Amino acid sequence: MNDTASNWRDHFIALRSNKFFEMTVIAIIILSAMLIGATTYDINPTGMALLKGLDIAVTFFFLAEILIRMAAEERIRDFFKNAWNVFDFLIVTISLIPIDESEMVLLARLLRIFRVLRLVSMIPELRVLMNALVIAIPRIGYVALLMFIIFYIFGAVGSFLFEKINPVLWGDIAISMLTLFRVATFEDWTDVMYETMAVYPFSWIYYLIFIFLTAFVFLNMMIGVVLNVMNEEHEKMNVEQGEGEAGEVHWIKEHTEEMEQRMKRMETLLQQIAEDKGKT
Amino acid sequence: MNDTASNWRDHFIALRSNKFFEMTVIAIIILSAMLIGATTYDINPTGMALLKGLDIAVTFFFLAEILIRMAAEERIRDFFKNAWNVFDFLIVTISLIPIDESEMVLLARLLRIFRVLRLVSMIPELRVLMNALVIAIPRIGYVALLMFIIFYIFGAVGSFLFEKINPVLWGDIAISMLTLFRVATFEDWTDVMYETMAVYPFSWIYYLIFIFLTAFVFLNMMIGVVLNVMNEEHEKMNVEQGEGEAGEVHWIKEHTEEMEQRMKRMETLLQQIAEDKGKT
Amino acid sequence: MNDTASNWRDHFIALRSNKFFEMTVIAIIILSAMLIGATTYDINPTGMALLKGLDIAVTFFFLAEILIRMAAEERIRDFFKNAWNVFDFLIVTISLIPIDESEMVLLARLLRIFRVLRLVSMIPELRVLMNALVIAIPRIGYVALLMFIIFYIFGAVGSFLFEKINPVLWGDIAISMLTLFRVATFEDWTDVMYETMAVYPFSWIYYLIFIFLTAFVFLNMMIGVVLNVMNEEHEKMNVEQGEGEAGEVHWIKEHTEEMEQRMKRMETLLQQIAEDKGKT
Amino acid sequence: MNDTASNWRDHFIALRSNKFFEMTVIAIIILSAMLIGATTYDINPTGMALLKGLDIAVTFFFLAEILIRMAAEERIRDFFKNAWNVFDFLIVTISLIPIDESEMVLLARLLRIFRVLRLVSMIPELRVLMNALVIAIPRIGYVALLMFIIFYIFGAVGSFLFEKINPVLWGDIAISMLTLFRVATFEDWTDVMYETMAVYPFSWIYYLIFIFLTAFVFLNMMIGVVLNVMNEEHEKMNVEQGEGEAGEVHWIKEHTEEMEQRMKRMETLLQQIAEDKGKT
Repeated sequence: MNDTASNWRDHFIALRSNKFFEMTVIAIIILSAMLIGATTYDINPTGMALLKGLDIAVTFFFLAEILIRMAAEERIRDFFKNAWNVFDFLIVTISLIPIDESEMVLLARLLRIFRVLRLVSMIPELRVLMNALVIAIPRIGYVALLMFIIFYIFGAVGSFLFEKINPVLWGDIAISMLTLFRVATFEDWTDVMYETMAVYPFSWIYYLIFIFLTAFVFLNMMIGVVLNVMNEEHEKMNVEQGEGEAGEVHWIKEHTEEMEQRMKRMETLLQQIAEDKGKT
Repeated sequence: MNDTASNWRDHFIALRSNKFFEMTVIAIIILSAMLIGATTYDINPTGMALLKGLDIAVTFFFLAEILIRMAAEERIRDFFKNAWNVFDFLIVTISLIPIDESEMVLLARLLRIFRVLRLVSMIPELRVLMNALVIAIPRIGYVALLMFIIFYIFGAVGSFLFEKINPVLWGDIAISMLTLFRVATFEDWTDVMYETMAVYPFSWIYYLIFIFLTAFVFLNMMIGVVLNVMNEEHEKMNVEQGEGEAGEVHWIKEHTEEMEQRMKRMETLLQQIAEDKGKT
Repeated sequence: MNDTASNWRDHFIALRSNKFFEMTVIAIIILSAMLIGATTYDINPTGMALLKGLDIAVTFFFLAEILIRMAAEERIRDFFKNAWNVFDFLIVTISLIPIDESEMVLLARLLRIFRVLRLVSMIPELRVLMNALVIAIPRIGYVALLMFIIFYIFGAVGSFLFEKINPVLWGDIAISMLTLFRVATFEDWTDVMYETMAVYPFSWIYYLIFIFLTAFVFLNMMIGVVLNVMNEEHEKMNVEQGEGEAGEVHWIKEHTEEMEQRMKRMETLLQQIAEDKGKT
Repeated sequence: MNDTASNWRDHFIALRSNKFFEMTVIAIIILSAMLIGATTYDINPTGMALLKGLDIAVTFFFLAEILIRMAAEERIRDFFKNAWNVFDFLIVTISLIPIDESEMVLLARLLRIFRVLRLVSMIPELRVLMNALVIAIPRIGYVALLMFIIFYIFGAVGSFLFEKINPVLWGDIAISMLTLFRVATFEDWTDVMYETMAVYPFSWIYYLIFIFLTAFVFLNMMIGVVLNVMNEEHEKMNVEQGEGEAGEVHWIKEHTEEMEQRMKRMETLLQQIAEDKGKT
């Protein structure tokens, strides 16, 4: 690698970590988000042309910014080791693909929306928050599976029993599970229940058991997650305290042991002296 | 027991704890669940015949699997000592009963659904989760009783006062309690209230007191459960710490006591020596 | 007090604390609750007469029971020192008042319902639970006042702004607060909002601020209550531990002090001996 | 500053901290709140005139009270150092502005409502509560930003996809976000979903992902806030305990160190004595 390239890289590194540059990127992301928001309003052709121009400018700014950040790395593949960089790279390159035919315009717009997510990769606090959320997912994994089994069983039962009453709500197991999700959110669930109670007067048992089961499992999941997080905190605290109080207690124990040995030796000496004295 | 039987049993034990065999069983349970789900869709006769064939195959696979697990035990009754085994056995044997007449087909289908629950008995993490849920039940017991008393009293009052306004909602105490459960889930509760307020303008007091009471009791129950679980965790932690810091403190205390005794003896000796010296 | 009376009182005390007698009382309370529930159903005259007969029997059983419990006390006023006894006494005496005219029958029925609450005074676990709930009330007091102020201000604003749009929902401050309570429970709140948004397009700001404020205050209240309860638990634990580890640490500290004094004396003695030795 | 002024100030300070004066102020605030509430009812002209008279009296009482509190300060600007005083001052002065023309009467009324907030500044417990709420705001800041990003992205997607289906709900990104807030509160969200499912049968995926995302982020926020508060409590407790047990442990450690040094000296002395004895 020659000196000029290395020299340039230093410039890029300096630029990348420049506070003003970061602020500009965040501002451009917010501008880009506002452009997307603006397109949802009815705008006259002049405004539309302006939006389009700004959108192209934003696209090229993002391209320039990502090239700078890639150039700031010693090797290109170092850049892709960071998941957030890969995320940024995908968003930027995808929005470069020229899809302007009227049919694909919706897709093009949808892809541009995800540029807003770059805010998360730019603001460190949000990145920390996202990591925390991602870490919390596996904890909930098995409870989600249990919840799915409950929904599946009640969905099948509901579909078998109530399909003829209202096929729109109970037509097949997928629709039944969606209806059950509605019941679980308490959204007009009594309308669903009263309809089936007209045919099966005791079908309220089905709904009550379902609601209690899901509420119960959900409650336990929440408590489980809270306790998990708390235990981790406690362990951290215990380790910290271990360096404080518990460490001192351990120190005292060891030194008390030494003192005991020393005192035994001293007592023996004293007894010898006392005995010698007695003899003389 | 002769050698051949014992030999066979070893094979069965090996098979039972074989990872691939376990995976196969889980796959077949999921297939069985998907078969049940498929029957909720409208399927042409050919597909129906295929489903039926697969269902019979699954039934016999489950029978074979449970026989293998029974044969792997030294005595058959050991098998039934585990509640999950009894659970599996019931599900498998019940689905063996040939109920194919059109009238009973619904019941046959419902019973087949519970095969999905075998997933819970097969996946250890789900089994742990279920045990945790079952353990949590008694904690909630008396609060549930208190809640039931509240519902019963308000149900009776509601039925006495509002029966003539809307017998569909307040016809008898059972229907009233169902209506109150609806109010407790905030499901179109104002529709219920406005209806009775047309006759008794102050009946909103009834609903507000009911909502506050149930919300209050529920909140306290949740806090109670969380605290219960936390106390258990704390006690565990204390015991663990007891072996650590508190144990060391106790050790120090005992040894400090010994050291004190020893020092008293030493002081007495020293005083004697000093006195003797004074005399000579 | 003569011996016979005292003798009788011993019998009553024995009866009161008899497990079988307690169970009978609980069974009669449940029967009484079921009688009340039964009257909400349409019953033929024969059944009605039976219910009436049973009700009178229950009333006299309760009277007998309370007289036994009063007779078991040394002085009548000791009986009234316990709030639960006063509660039982009121319920029993009120149901003795003969109100059978058709006009007052509703009131008579309502008063009988509260007999169910005697379950709470009979089952110790429920009594503990009730005490815990009552203790939790003041903790929530000031938050409830703050909540009321929020409702009052938004109720007044709502009534001023929206009264002409829908007097049924916003007629005066009391009705407005009820409507706001409905909004706080998310019960068809968008119907309320869309109605006012037709006149004031920006009135969604009013609803959003209100929802966020109440949710925020409620959340903080919950957290506050949980923390309060937890702090109390911690203090209890600390006191308990204080008798354990912290107590031992304190013991060690005091004895270390004594040991130090003793050692100083010993060192002085030793130095004297060494000096004496040097002289001789 | 001459003596008379200082003398007067002492009177004002005494008055300001007088318990009876405080109670009077609180009573007048409650009266003022009731006056505002009363104006939302239909009142005959006589009552209206009475209300107006009372309102003027209240306004002048508040003016007098705030002047007393200002006069009780050594310098006027000390008064404005306390945010609650500034708050009181603004409320009182604004209600002095004479806006009685029929057009501005609504504004005048709205401003008067905020007098109720003076209750918060008068009751210390409410002031503590408010401070606690204000402190909790920044903790929630970044989660609120993340939530806003989620709403913004889903709002834009919703507006692009569903605008033609129902412009009232999905017309532009602002309306879409309001609709999504409705979905997040589970308010008739299935009506919104069924409408779009008629055109895009798989649009339930959009709603389910949105609901799970918001519920998940909200749950994590709650847990985060609870843990934050708990950590602070723990730290406080640790500091307090540090003065208790941990402090004693530290004391013991230091004194054990001193004792060790002393014992080494004593052992040396004893060995010398024993050696000397041996020699003689």
